[in-house]
Amino acid sequence: MGKKFIHNLGLGTDAALGSKGAALNEMASLGLPVPAGFVITKTTEATHENLAAAIKKIGKGFGDPKNPLLLAVRSSPEGATLGTMETVLNAGLNDETVEGLAAQLQNRNQAYALYCQFIQTYAVNVLGLRHAEFEDMHDGDEISQRVAKFKSAIERKTGESFPQDVATQIADIIQAAPAQHGAVVVQAMVHGAGAPLVVASRNPATGAAYDGGSAKLKSTLSKLERHFKSPQEVTFIESKDKLWFLKSKALKASAKIELKMIVDMANEGLLARKDALLRVDPFILDQFLHPTLDAAAITEIFATGIAASPGAVSGQVVFEATEAQQLKSRGRPAILVRVETSPEDIQGMHAAEGVLTARGGLLSHAAVIARGMGKTCVVGASHLRIDYEAQTMTSLGSVIKRGEMVTLDGSTGRVYRGVLATLKPILSGDFATILEWADEFRRMEVRANAETPAEARSARYFGAEGIGLCRTEHMFFSADRIRPMRRMILAETIEARKAALDEILPMQRQDFIELFEIMAGLPVTIRLLDPPLHEFLPKSEHDILDLAAELHIAPEYLRARVAELQEFNPMLGHRGVRLAVSHPEIAEMQARAIFEATADVAKKYGKAPIPEIMIPLVVGKLELDFVRARVVAVAEDVQRECGLELPYLVGTMIELPRAALRAAEIAQSAEFFSFGTNDLTQTTLGISRDDSARFIGEYTAKGLMKNDPFISLDIEGVGELLQIAVERGRKSRPDLKLGICGEHAGDPESIDFCETIKLDYISCSPFRIAIARLAAAQATIRNK
Amino acid sequence: MGKKFIHNLGLGTDAALGSKGAALNEMASLGLPVPAGFVITKTTEATHENLAAAIKKIGKGFGDPKNPLLLAVRSSPEGATLGTMETVLNAGLNDETVEGLAAQLQNRNQAYALYCQFIQTYAVNVLGLRHAEFEDMHDGDEISQRVAKFKSAIERKTGESFPQDVATQIADIIQAAPAQHGAVVVQAMVHGAGAPLVVASRNPATGAAYDGGSAKLKSTLSKLERHFKSPQEVTFIESKDKLWFLKSKALKASAKIELKMIVDMANEGLLARKDALLRVDPFILDQFLHPTLDAAAITEIFATGIAASPGAVSGQVVFEATEAQQLKSRGRPAILVRVETSPEDIQGMHAAEGVLTARGGLLSHAAVIARGMGKTCVVGASHLRIDYEAQTMTSLGSVIKRGEMVTLDGSTGRVYRGVLATLKPILSGDFATILEWADEFRRMEVRANAETPAEARSARYFGAEGIGLCRTEHMFFSADRIRPMRRMILAETIEARKAALDEILPMQRQDFIELFEIMAGLPVTIRLLDPPLHEFLPKSEHDILDLAAELHIAPEYLRARVAELQEFNPMLGHRGVRLAVSHPEIAEMQARAIFEATADVAKKYGKAPIPEIMIPLVVGKLELDFVRARVVAVAEDVQRECGLELPYLVGTMIELPRAALRAAEIAQSAEFFSFGTNDLTQTTLGISRDDSARFIGEYTAKGLMKNDPFISLDIEGVGELLQIAVERGRKSRPDLKLGICGEHAGDPESIDFCETIKLDYISCSPFRIAIARLAAAQATIRNK
Repeated sequence: MGKKFIHNLGLGTDAALGSKGAALNEMASLGLPVPAGFVITKTTEATHENLAAAIKKIGKGFGDPKNPLLLAVRSSPEGATLGTMETVLNAGLNDETVEGLAAQLQNRNQAYALYCQFIQTYAVNVLGLRHAEFEDMHDGDEISQRVAKFKSAIERKTGESFPQDVATQIADIIQAAPAQHGAVVVQAMVHGAGAPLVVASRNPATGAAYDGGSAKLKSTLSKLERHFKSPQEVTFIESKDKLWFLKSKALKASAKIELKMIVDMANEGLLARKDALLRVDPFILDQFLHPTLDAAAITEIFATGIAASPGAVSGQVVFEATEAQQLKSRGRPAILVRVETSPEDIQGMHAAEGVLTARGGLLSHAAVIARGMGKTCVVGASHLRIDYEAQTMTSLGSVIKRGEMVTLDGSTGRVYRGVLATLKPILSGDFATILEWADEFRRMEVRANAETPAEARSARYFGAEGIGLCRTEHMFFSADRIRPMRRMILAETIEARKAALDEILPMQRQDFIELFEIMAGLPVTIRLLDPPLHEFLPKSEHDILDLAAELHIAPEYLRARVAELQEFNPMLGHRGVRLAVSHPEIAEMQARAIFEATADVAKKYGKAPIPEIMIPLVVGKLELDFVRARVVAVAEDVQRECGLELPYLVGTMIELPRAALRAAEIAQSAEFFSFGTNDLTQTTLGISRDDSARFIGEYTAKGLMKNDPFISLDIEGVGELLQIAVERGRKSRPDLKLGICGEHAGDPESIDFCETIKLDYISCSPFRIAIARLAAAQATIRNK
Repeated sequence: MGKKFIHNLGLGTDAALGSKGAALNEMASLGLPVPAGFVITKTTEATHENLAAAIKKIGKGFGDPKNPLLLAVRSSPEGATLGTMETVLNAGLNDETVEGLAAQLQNRNQAYALYCQFIQTYAVNVLGLRHAEFEDMHDGDEISQRVAKFKSAIERKTGESFPQDVATQIADIIQAAPAQHGAVVVQAMVHGAGAPLVVASRNPATGAAYDGGSAKLKSTLSKLERHFKSPQEVTFIESKDKLWFLKSKALKASAKIELKMIVDMANEGLLARKDALLRVDPFILDQFLHPTLDAAAITEIFATGIAASPGAVSGQVVFEATEAQQLKSRGRPAILVRVETSPEDIQGMHAAEGVLTARGGLLSHAAVIARGMGKTCVVGASHLRIDYEAQTMTSLGSVIKRGEMVTLDGSTGRVYRGVLATLKPILSGDFATILEWADEFRRMEVRANAETPAEARSARYFGAEGIGLCRTEHMFFSADRIRPMRRMILAETIEARKAALDEILPMQRQDFIELFEIMAGLPVTIRLLDPPLHEFLPKSEHDILDLAAELHIAPEYLRARVAELQEFNPMLGHRGVRLAVSHPEIAEMQARAIFEATADVAKKYGKAPIPEIMIPLVVGKLELDFVRARVVAVAEDVQRECGLELPYLVGTMIELPRAALRAAEIAQSAEFFSFGTNDLTQTTLGISRDDSARFIGEYTAKGLMKNDPFISLDIEGVGELLQIAVERGRKSRPDLKLGICGEHAGDPESIDFCETIKLDYISCSPFRIAIARLAAAQATIRNK
């Protein structure tokens, strides 16, 4: 039979008891009236003998015609699994005991109705009949004839008769409970009780505590809240002025109300702050940060893609980044629609209210950049056909033209025609309280990945304690920068390259001055130029002709240079520290801009920020030393020139497996490590995140992968490399500063892992800061 | 002074003694007459006192006017470093001792000439004067006047006088020896000896042993050969019928002669076979495998690139793969010239005698494929401009048109206009002997990476013991395969895909039948389809139109599908096991072809080959299980159908860092691991081998990387992952079969590492088999 008695109610809790069994057990342990009963777990055998013994412990009279003990049998699934066995009530009724029940209830009709009900649920759950087969039998006939009809229906359908032996009844019911649904609870029926009532300890619509007048129920609900550490939905029955408790489970409500209830409970002293923090799902905070679609306003869906960055925004459809900028300058909202985005679209993405792409996954260019900007974004709308020439987009036969209004819902990935009403975000109140409490417990520092002043400001607004990743390449894509940048890339001599860099220097310096002012007193980690240079060159024939004309060079020459710089696998190409090795003058210009900005801010405010200069994509110590030496030389020059001592750190990103393995030697030349887990995931798993949408979905659907490894850190693989790097790095430099700046730094499960390996900080996009603050606090509490 | 006495000659050998010092030391230890002396190493101080004491041990009379001891001072570099200090002879001569020498030599002119020489070399090496400043002083004047002129030249130039104190002389000379050149040897001059003579123990032109008549010298040469374990070039002087030995070093000769001398020495009993094997540089075997350019025929160079695959071949220049095939069909040699090659060029590469590309490095597509085919290849000829439209190539102003003859030298990377004479390879004799001996010692099995019957045959010819990597994708590029392959890729339904696969099945089965017949009795490892599917689709607009017409589909549709399948980083894309997860029917077709071929060959020959089916690019156990289950199901079907039991293995490639880390669980589902170190290097270091030419050269030139990690295994990084995988894999499956099939399997240094981690086999391209056999033997001997 595969089932065995384990506990009578009242014994210690146990996962094997399932959710209902455990809750009953705990309610009993709190001294609340709970009908007597026991739990059968799925692991071992239940025989007639030990069933009988267990029933005897519940009470006398099972099968007694005069004063029959009746039983309820419920499945008690583990965790969130839904049990399909319905509850069987009044087991123990037969042709004799029904008369005893009738006498007790002083209501023969009611007793027989319960008997019929029992026969029917028995037939359905034990014998596999359908409820429909009894549908017409409840009315009409005299009550005892009805029982006969029920019984003969069973015989007709199954050839078996309904068992009059109560021990057989109960054994059959227990055996019929599907094993995968976990434990089974057998509990005495309460005589003379009405129908079960359900009460919420707090109003799920307003969050207000229960104030139903019954002081006895109120104090019990408080007791249950305190015990279960969350608002409860409680099922009970009343019999002769006594309340019998049958069920207690966590109360569900909207994100906003759930948060309020938890904060209230903590303020009322029902919940310790650390337990309150553990009760909040960090992801619900996301819903506080963006406007959401008003459910009442929802209309027909135009297209569906992947929800890449939350928020609900409306705007005019444009297909070119420049058009988004033009609309913005006229104060009008734009939705930028592209097959996919590239670094050239950055300004347009900034200008647009939201971004929609036909291709790409959660970690496509569009998704990553949009999340970084806190911009609503839907990607990979695979049925969407974009026709740049006709300036239209088509989805399932429906067409939207340039200039028409659409609404994006970045939380569901849905796209609607027209303007839909939205609800504004609220960042104060309970949201702020929870984050304040989180900061009391949190061990890891939380920084932001930010490069523009706007991002830096929103990072501070959300509570970032510094910048953990300032990518410098995006600074080069604006119209005034891209020209000298392109001249620099196409330079044939070091002199020509330096001349172009000299033009860029003051602009880059100004970038850092602005960041340092916003981040006054906080650390700012600046990554030196990382992407392959061809990303800055034009791709289309049209743009090549334009640039050639602008630079007064032959289009053939430019075309050849562009082709020459093309790469088969740019992700694994000539980028990161490799650029600085080939063109140290670029790194030197950047270092100069950083140190001059530091000096400028130091003079203005009397206190220098501490820039942390990060050299990306290293695989060993030698290349790091090569670039580090140049950065240090520039630092010394600038300090001499300005007459100030400027503190700074030089460190590296650990984003390639070899860097993790060689962490001991690399740490000799690095004052900090920042784990670039996006690239580390790409290389450790050999998966290009831009191309992964094609198959990762299939993998998770087929159960071959638990999570998308770009969303939740692959702890078994990438995590081991992080652990190796932390151990080896700290061994060779005990005060090595360790952080993470990949997308994973905004993912609670990954943040928990970062706590276990004792990183010093996590750095995520500004709009994930709140989630990270809470998740980091939870991780500290959990791992203490 | 940074120098210190360590050893008088005759004491034990020591690396610090440098090459000359060590050789002298060893000759003395053999009992050969060696002029007395001592060695000063670069590590610690030489004072006047210990210099004097050491000189006293050489003999009496240093500075003695009557019977002066004179000294020679030579630098003794470590290893192959070239010392720039020239040898200083007759130190200890001054105005007095020169008279003593004159009396001894009974030749005043000779004594003064030696004195002048000494003054000059002292002036040049100690005081930094140039030889030219003494050029005109050697003739004319009376001998003693000449000395005065030399001395006054020194005073005029430096303001210092030539030291008469012999202790000062010797101390100055020793201090002047550049520290980086290692040790310094101080040795007594032999009075009355003639000029030093040089003799080779074997004739470097023919390999014949010395037979110069002097039995005494002959036996000494044998003694030295036996001692130094190689043919020697010996420097000695004769004085009063006695031979004094000054120097002995390894004799250099052509590869062919060096091999002959080593084999001869072993056959003569002068060298144990294991020592003979260790003496042979595996790379010289390469020169035996390909025709080489006749040095006499060399003319002006047209272009220079990277020597990617050896051999010297001539043919007509063609710029299209199809043209190479056409020429081949007319029996005429072609040289295929491309900016770079792609999988579509494979058939043309097969047909051509040699391949020349303007782009790419040692591990570009062209280089890897050409080496696999044993085809001469020059890549990355960066000054070469190819104009496909004009059908010309231009290098430094010189133009070659389609159809003109050129000669490629794949050993030097040079390209010549016209046909140059070549020398044929010789695979018997000493070459065969060395390989036979290697096989006596070798522990690891040597297999070949081969997929065509031609490659398989040449693999066997070179001694391969099976196929370690049969890539199946190249089988799909021929004209008759690519059509159903493309139909399969573009199929919209599983049925359409299966129909296309049904067309491919018999062809694929025939491929395997041919391979199994050639490899009868030997293992054959077959890798299931690996590259992303877009590699099989056309890229140019022209080809897209062609294919659309052929398949009766709309060009727009085809264009969209091609664009859809495009990837940003194909190396990290939808390929390997991921293809089999998305389209299990492809893997099933391949498995069926393999098992049916196995059954066919088993029936024909009474004995079944044992196919080893390899699933590429796994990162964990689950995806491997998914595909493995399908392969096993097909195996069972085919065995049932043919009524035979067919033994086979299923294993995986370990080519991604995560696979190495998760080796324990992967080994539960894999009967063998084959290390794909090409891809493992790409991902561990984050370097695309196709794009690496751009910066790896710079890295090695700047000393930031020791070797190109695609040529010699990165032992510190990739090597650690191999070690981890071997340990974890063997722990979970003790009889796990372990091999390597990356390009590194043909590199001696990497092979040595494979021996240290105890791999079972190495698998390289057929033309590297000889090198691998020898290198594996050396590794076994070294690591015993």
